[in-house]
Amino acid sequence: MSLTVVGSLAFDAVKTPFGSRERMLGGAATHFSLAASFFDEVRPVGPVGDDFGPEDWAVLQTRGTITDDVEHVPGGKTFFWAGEYSDNLNDRVTHVTDLNVFADFQPKLSPAAQECDVLFLANIQPDLQLGVREQCHRARFVAMDSMNFWIDSAREDLERTIRSVDCLILNDEELEQLTGKPTTVAAAEEILSWGPRAVVAKQGKYGAALFSDAGFFALPAYPLAEVIDPTGAGDSFAGGFVGYVAAQGDEPIDHDLLARAMAYGTALASYNVEEFGTERVARLTADEVAARVADLQRMTRFDLAPLTLRG
Amino acid sequence: MSLTVVGSLAFDAVKTPFGSRERMLGGAATHFSLAASFFDEVRPVGPVGDDFGPEDWAVLQTRGTITDDVEHVPGGKTFFWAGEYSDNLNDRVTHVTDLNVFADFQPKLSPAAQECDVLFLANIQPDLQLGVREQCHRARFVAMDSMNFWIDSAREDLERTIRSVDCLILNDEELEQLTGKPTTVAAAEEILSWGPRAVVAKQGKYGAALFSDAGFFALPAYPLAEVIDPTGAGDSFAGGFVGYVAAQGDEPIDHDLLARAMAYGTALASYNVEEFGTERVARLTADEVAARVADLQRMTRFDLAPLTLRG
Repeated sequence: MSLTVVGSLAFDAVKTPFGSRERMLGGAATHFSLAASFFDEVRPVGPVGDDFGPEDWAVLQTRGTITDDVEHVPGGKTFFWAGEYSDNLNDRVTHVTDLNVFADFQPKLSPAAQECDVLFLANIQPDLQLGVREQCHRARFVAMDSMNFWIDSAREDLERTIRSVDCLILNDEELEQLTGKPTTVAAAEEILSWGPRAVVAKQGKYGAALFSDAGFFALPAYPLAEVIDPTGAGDSFAGGFVGYVAAQGDEPIDHDLLARAMAYGTALASYNVEEFGTERVARLTADEVAARVADLQRMTRFDLAPLTLRG
Repeated sequence: MSLTVVGSLAFDAVKTPFGSRERMLGGAATHFSLAASFFDEVRPVGPVGDDFGPEDWAVLQTRGTITDDVEHVPGGKTFFWAGEYSDNLNDRVTHVTDLNVFADFQPKLSPAAQECDVLFLANIQPDLQLGVREQCHRARFVAMDSMNFWIDSAREDLERTIRSVDCLILNDEELEQLTGKPTTVAAAEEILSWGPRAVVAKQGKYGAALFSDAGFFALPAYPLAEVIDPTGAGDSFAGGFVGYVAAQGDEPIDHDLLARAMAYGTALASYNVEEFGTERVARLTADEVAARVADLQRMTRFDLAPLTLRG
């Protein structure tokens, strides 16, 4: 089995109420790969520049991730993003977005990357996502992310791409924006009518919800007293979620399997935000992941005792 | 067993994207009583004016609620609130707050109301809450709500009142505001150190989380494609939650019992928002409540299959 992800590899400058980093490894494909590498052999696809150093390659290759499809653009600079979070981490402002080598990125997948069983299209231009999706005709599960920028600027391409995948993973407010519906439930129902068999609404610090033809499932975020840096939480969630699906072999990808995948995504995302950038997940252990998944099961389970209500 | 609630009885004028009402029965004690009446004999305490008509008394008396402690102030007018919700119901603006008979409200509890087993202090002036709490010395479980207005204007009274109760039920952002902590988890830990044995963070459309010495529990809101009027959702939640506790007799009020109570609170709140004001909960049936509680259990349960992660 193998798992391909296409998306950004980047350097981030981040300031949060708890500290800052001038330049750290980031990008959606990076955070996704680090999380998904617990479950399967991952092949990230994306461009980097001359400034992508040996230590960056080493982090990306954590737990056996194969970087053959990471394209080094000679003379280029790696995508750079700088942003700052508000005191309660609920809002962030972007100070710098230098696309650099990402500006002219045309994903070219090796035969090995094309033959993946599972594919994740991280947040890039929707027509590029669709092009990659069409190269991976053997994939038994394709999931994608996107963002408000593409809803505003490339709506038709985005809708066409969503119609080609199995699962859309998007922030709840973006789901509502995309569909014009006033609730996440109505928005997810609309997306399911387009073709995907599952929709995951990311709710930030509140957790995530899964919608499929078989129903609804939701998990809170793992409770943390301190959040240091939310950057990459959504991609770490996707890495745990999609990675879990990839690790299930030929088991039917049904609602219950996706619900279990949500728990792994939630656990990975919770570790991601405990430190800056990739710092925490790069040294994370399998036992730590398993412990939080078990915690989440306990923290959401309740038993019903018989009770006669007044009529 | 009996359950006393002190709080507002009101008329509301509400406008949402889905319609409006010029004058409907509302108020925290009203919504709380309608929800809690599924579980126990409820005694609301609060003032009303001459405009509180026979049909309003009848709604309040749904499922046997005893209105002996509702104080009719001759010549007075009932508390009136007018507000309007934004398109996605996330924000609301208040157009009118006429306190009327509520301005001079001094809670006077009858002996029967004072001898309650369980007490809920809905959102009123903190020193009035404390006065009621001290009248109900036999209560084995006392919960309270509050709001940002009192955090800003009566912080010391509020903290003193919180220290006297068993459970604080508050919006998550207000918990953070009250404690100056950047996360709900840190805020809840701070409140637990003040004395309450439980904190419930209300998260609006995302659900609610429970914090106690025994740990963390969270439930999503019941998934609804359409929300007509969120007014009173928090008080309906409290009515289901506190009502469930009241119905458990002498069973120890531990984390697991409170987790089950969260499910009833969540179910009641979900029905409340389906129609305007008290319309839906007034005609709700016990079977409908039980059905949503069972749904919530199913929608949050996941089973873990053995999985070896890559190291």
